[in-house]
Amino acid sequence: MINEKIRQLRTLMKDNGIDIYIIPTNDYHSSEYVGDYFKCREYMSGFTGSAGTLIVTLEEACLWVDGRYFIQAEKEIAGSEIKLMKMAMPHVLTINEYLNQFKDQTIGFDGKVIPYQSALQYGQHIKADQDLVAQIWKDRPAMSKQSAFLFDEFYCGESRTSKLKRIREEMKDIPYHLISSLDDIAWIFNIRGQDVAATPVVLAYALITQEKAFLYLQNGVLNAEMITALQQDQIFVKDYYDLYQDVKTIHGQVMLDGSTVNYALASKLREEQIVDRINPSQLMKAIKNDTEIKATKNAHLKDGIAVTKFMYWLKHTIGKSELNEMAVAEKLLAFRKQQDLFKDISFTTICAYGPNAALMHYHPTAENHANIDAQGLLLIDSGGQYLDGTTDITRTFVMGPLTDKEKRDFTIALKAMLRLQNAHFIKGVTTGENLDILARGIIYEYDLDYRCGTGHGVGHFLSVHEGPNGIRPKSLSVNAHILPGMITTDEPGVYNEGEYGIRHENELLCIEGETNEYGTFLHFEPITYVPFDLEGIDYDYLSNKEIESLNNYQKMVYHKLENYLSEEERNWYLHNLIIK
Amino acid sequence: MINEKIRQLRTLMKDNGIDIYIIPTNDYHSSEYVGDYFKCREYMSGFTGSAGTLIVTLEEACLWVDGRYFIQAEKEIAGSEIKLMKMAMPHVLTINEYLNQFKDQTIGFDGKVIPYQSALQYGQHIKADQDLVAQIWKDRPAMSKQSAFLFDEFYCGESRTSKLKRIREEMKDIPYHLISSLDDIAWIFNIRGQDVAATPVVLAYALITQEKAFLYLQNGVLNAEMITALQQDQIFVKDYYDLYQDVKTIHGQVMLDGSTVNYALASKLREEQIVDRINPSQLMKAIKNDTEIKATKNAHLKDGIAVTKFMYWLKHTIGKSELNEMAVAEKLLAFRKQQDLFKDISFTTICAYGPNAALMHYHPTAENHANIDAQGLLLIDSGGQYLDGTTDITRTFVMGPLTDKEKRDFTIALKAMLRLQNAHFIKGVTTGENLDILARGIIYEYDLDYRCGTGHGVGHFLSVHEGPNGIRPKSLSVNAHILPGMITTDEPGVYNEGEYGIRHENELLCIEGETNEYGTFLHFEPITYVPFDLEGIDYDYLSNKEIESLNNYQKMVYHKLENYLSEEERNWYLHNLIIK
Repeated sequence: MINEKIRQLRTLMKDNGIDIYIIPTNDYHSSEYVGDYFKCREYMSGFTGSAGTLIVTLEEACLWVDGRYFIQAEKEIAGSEIKLMKMAMPHVLTINEYLNQFKDQTIGFDGKVIPYQSALQYGQHIKADQDLVAQIWKDRPAMSKQSAFLFDEFYCGESRTSKLKRIREEMKDIPYHLISSLDDIAWIFNIRGQDVAATPVVLAYALITQEKAFLYLQNGVLNAEMITALQQDQIFVKDYYDLYQDVKTIHGQVMLDGSTVNYALASKLREEQIVDRINPSQLMKAIKNDTEIKATKNAHLKDGIAVTKFMYWLKHTIGKSELNEMAVAEKLLAFRKQQDLFKDISFTTICAYGPNAALMHYHPTAENHANIDAQGLLLIDSGGQYLDGTTDITRTFVMGPLTDKEKRDFTIALKAMLRLQNAHFIKGVTTGENLDILARGIIYEYDLDYRCGTGHGVGHFLSVHEGPNGIRPKSLSVNAHILPGMITTDEPGVYNEGEYGIRHENELLCIEGETNEYGTFLHFEPITYVPFDLEGIDYDYLSNKEIESLNNYQKMVYHKLENYLSEEERNWYLHNLIIK
Repeated sequence: MINEKIRQLRTLMKDNGIDIYIIPTNDYHSSEYVGDYFKCREYMSGFTGSAGTLIVTLEEACLWVDGRYFIQAEKEIAGSEIKLMKMAMPHVLTINEYLNQFKDQTIGFDGKVIPYQSALQYGQHIKADQDLVAQIWKDRPAMSKQSAFLFDEFYCGESRTSKLKRIREEMKDIPYHLISSLDDIAWIFNIRGQDVAATPVVLAYALITQEKAFLYLQNGVLNAEMITALQQDQIFVKDYYDLYQDVKTIHGQVMLDGSTVNYALASKLREEQIVDRINPSQLMKAIKNDTEIKATKNAHLKDGIAVTKFMYWLKHTIGKSELNEMAVAEKLLAFRKQQDLFKDISFTTICAYGPNAALMHYHPTAENHANIDAQGLLLIDSGGQYLDGTTDITRTFVMGPLTDKEKRDFTIALKAMLRLQNAHFIKGVTTGENLDILARGIIYEYDLDYRCGTGHGVGHFLSVHEGPNGIRPKSLSVNAHILPGMITTDEPGVYNEGEYGIRHENELLCIEGETNEYGTFLHFEPITYVPFDLEGIDYDYLSNKEIESLNNYQKMVYHKLENYLSEEERNWYLHNLIIK
């Protein structure tokens, strides 16, 4: 099946004079999650993960996946001719190193799904005008074209006019700013949509000048009233594909982020026109305003009520009724759906029992899920999109007896989470690269690690993953300072292949502390309001100070939630979730 | 006096058509410590610190100093027209920002004391052929020209032929490699000298080709036998200044580090000839071989004996005899001098009592030093140059009663030092930027900071400060991985202006631990063998695990030293320096 698709692709490659064909995981906007229409890599390789690149030559086919997906990808491509390339492992070529071997041959790809910067590294012999997969994929779903809406200032706290003013200040003398990243567009124009699963964005491009702005949307996604409202702000709606023509008519300089704007668009400009830099809206969007912070905290309160009630249900059901990962994930969703302004989940729920949780981005499906027994650990990483905010939370629940090693790892992961949560640091000095080891260093002490970052930025009723803030040993692009108003997750873990996976995740709001001769100190305020399951803890691994810190968190959460819990839930909380 | 010198400089500037004149703290080799001949900035400004830049325009004179020197510089330039520029403080222009204001005017400096890379940033109007200070400084000392010697492979463990082979491999197709950094030259050629205070280097340049190497030295610093020995390794000695002529005859590409090679030299090459990169010897030198590690540990054992015996003397003398900073520093030197192969101190001893210790790089002089009373804290940061290794150690000694705040800060600084010392991390992943917060983060928790890095690399019978390894929030140049064989200091502190300063410093050797699916874990082995003064500790600030870690260190040191201590010293150690 997979081998047959690859055979067909090779025939098309030969017909088009292409020696190597690249199929990334991407839409036309470098979105993290892509709509079904864009799942060419999944269609061609059978690998269902959210990230990965398939490269097919006339002789071989290779799939690059990152550490989260080593195990899953191996399973899913088994039986095909595809060779797994484990990214960042010793002796594994990077994509660019691999492509370098074919410098004199013709590299093909659909120019709309490869960012400009990436394509520039592929050398001189590029053929980017063909989406070859389109010719193989007969039952390809249509591109999403859902209705969108204007996001109320009541929730987002700043008008699109004000945001455009700030962006134009950053543009300075550059007459054009081209944006294709959907979350930037949603934030700047206060617009939300439903074109990408779990992310309330609309497929769009934008072009901003000093006087006007143009929003390129599929026909009909906004109604006439909304279009008029935008026009009053000097924002003019055009057809989604018109930009590919419009860019050809631009003569001045264009500020764009070549790491997100696709090659098909950017290559229509002359190289000297392009001012390649990160969209200024990235940093602006990451620093939440007071309205967004208040709204987000309210979303977290509701999310906390839902997840805590779910936890009560789970802890009282395990061992009494049969449970499986899929049913449990659906139950959690049912609790969230009871909450005001809940719109959607913010990513596919990871509900992973026992060894499944060691697969870092496993999620259960109707066809493939495990039963949950009254022992071991259940990891649930989930989140909600509420009209007032986006949430992302992981808790690891104790289903019954644990081994000493499970308890140790449960405890050290929590200790790591808390050490980062309690950090003080300095504004304008400290970056995510600096902070990472506060969490990871605890795991390192046991000669363990987790193959992912410690944390990522979270949007406001937007992408559950956003930049520039992030907490990693080495930043992916900019090494951003962590600044007041940023919301970043704190989610260290321990993953023991074939045994269990543990992760504890709070979202942390960066807030200002004391200012003195050393600068302005910053702290974190946890805005996730769900208790940790204390049954997993081996107190020998915690100092008194750490126990106190954990208990303060548990008590804070109790006071947030108590009015929304039933008497049984409150009693259960007081007896089981607060350390005496 | 200072104003008069600046007046004279302005006259010379006008005579030479110069509008702005830069006087850095530098010799011709970008050495950290400079010989008396090169102390032009000190001569012109009166500021005696080890780093700083004086810029004189026709209207004003500004002195840039870093955080270590804010207080000292303010004192020393008081009464002159010089304006203090506190580097990295809010609203203070950087040197480049300042110079940018004078883009169209002529910037002058002695091209031999400004690195190539820096000079390139000064714009188009440069006049670099004049050392104007030379014309003002009538009683300028002569340039140092001390005898040098070839360093025995018994101590350094690798022949110059082998080192040259490794460097030539890094040069690949580049025919020339020009080196002006004295520690690189000393390391590559296994040569040591006495031209810079406390650093056993010889003033020299080097030019390496694939077949030969040329060493540019002042006439007479090596004897005929040494010159012959070098010739046998295809290393040819030429006159120190000959390189300025020789570079003009080079036609091929030249690898050089534009951040250390001076402008006068590099600007004699065409820009396209220059391959500007960090000298490969930097990383090679930082990773000590087994011979160097063994020798360095032996130097530390001797240094530990000296400092511990000194500590016994100090703790038994305070309150009984009159003590002052200068006399105490001399007493410490006397203990070091008793040790085998001791050659020199490795930097000017910081012996700072009470508030003096808050001046981070204060050192007592015959004219200016404090008496030491039987209360408060005495900080001593000192080190030795032994033929078998270089040491750098800080201990803060309790002289009598302490305030609660002094005890708290003594304890948190030690806690910070220990947390970094106990780190586990991953080879090829973790950098000094990642590690810094393990120490600094403890200090941050109290909304305090120290205005310097946490640690620096240490040479082997060479510079007490070397790269590329360092532990700082943001690396100065390369963000280097911390790798096995590197020796790095761990020296967090608390500095309370007008009150006290506390610093605890161990040197840490990076060693390999377990290798597993996550990579190769690295740890630190402390190679400083001197106990901490437990009288300073408030145990409320330490967890049981931290107390155990501290005590294990104290016991390890005892076992290293016991055979070299007297019975009284041993009893004192057992009763006072080990936690029961």
